[in-house]
Amino acid sequence: MWRHSLLAALLLVVTPPISISAQRAAGPKQRGNRIIAAVRAVLDAQVAAWNRGDVEGYMDGYWRSEETVFVSGDSLTRGWQTVLARYKKNYNSREKMGTLTFSDLEIRPIGSDAAIAVGRWHLQRAKDEPHGRFTLIFRKTKQGWRIVHDHTSSAT
Amino acid sequence: MWRHSLLAALLLVVTPPISISAQRAAGPKQRGNRIIAAVRAVLDAQVAAWNRGDVEGYMDGYWRSEETVFVSGDSLTRGWQTVLARYKKNYNSREKMGTLTFSDLEIRPIGSDAAIAVGRWHLQRAKDEPHGRFTLIFRKTKQGWRIVHDHTSSAT
Repeated sequence: MWRHSLLAALLLVVTPPISISAQRAAGPKQRGNRIIAAVRAVLDAQVAAWNRGDVEGYMDGYWRSEETVFVSGDSLTRGWQTVLARYKKNYNSREKMGTLTFSDLEIRPIGSDAAIAVGRWHLQRAKDEPHGRFTLIFRKTKQGWRIVHDHTSSAT
Repeated sequence: MWRHSLLAALLLVVTPPISISAQRAAGPKQRGNRIIAAVRAVLDAQVAAWNRGDVEGYMDGYWRSEETVFVSGDSLTRGWQTVLARYKKNYNSREKMGTLTFSDLEIRPIGSDAAIAVGRWHLQRAKDEPHGRFTLIFRKTKQGWRIVHDHTSSAT
């Protein structure tokens, strides 16, 4: 009896809860692939929203927080609402929004709840083609993977 | 005898190595403060190196890896050696290097082995004052905390 309860205690200690066990069983590589797919899905949804003229849909990719940061040139914009206002001001017509594409995407998980996405952005417009690079920091939030920090630069 | 060996096995399972135990005892806030101090020390050393005209000393802040990335404007430079070559080309005299300051620094740990540093950079030179913002991703490497990704933008 004593022997069985001690064995049970031992099993209790070495057996993690089922959910954690399943996550670990997937392995770091599969977990990484899941993160990459989730981040890519957010970026795809952003491009689709932008290209139907839906700035607020595009902004769904960002964490709805006062801490969310957008950096560009010499300026830093803080807070989801303020970043939205900046986009609405700079892209206040379908013509200014043009057609967005992302390319050369590289997504790297950092641990289990963060990732970096680096890539090129390009706007095809009637009179010009602004383009450049971005570095995005994603965190896993309650709403899913969201951009918490965006540093965007342009060709000069 | 059997009883003692099973107890010993149980202790082996539930007792983490001393170093991990000590780290956990410090708590996430103290760990965060240690990370912030370590990252700040790297940035301070970079500024000091730059301001004595030591580009290679400045480059000590970056991870010595072919994966290290520097993004600016529309360009992406990959690899510590290539980033060093870019700095040496763009700042090939003491006059061009000027006097560097970092300000408005915000350092946020991501888990236990990564951190983001955001801030402003400013070069005081005889004829101009280039300046802008940077987003740095630090990782804890065998050599200490190092920049693995730098996205820098300039006032236009």
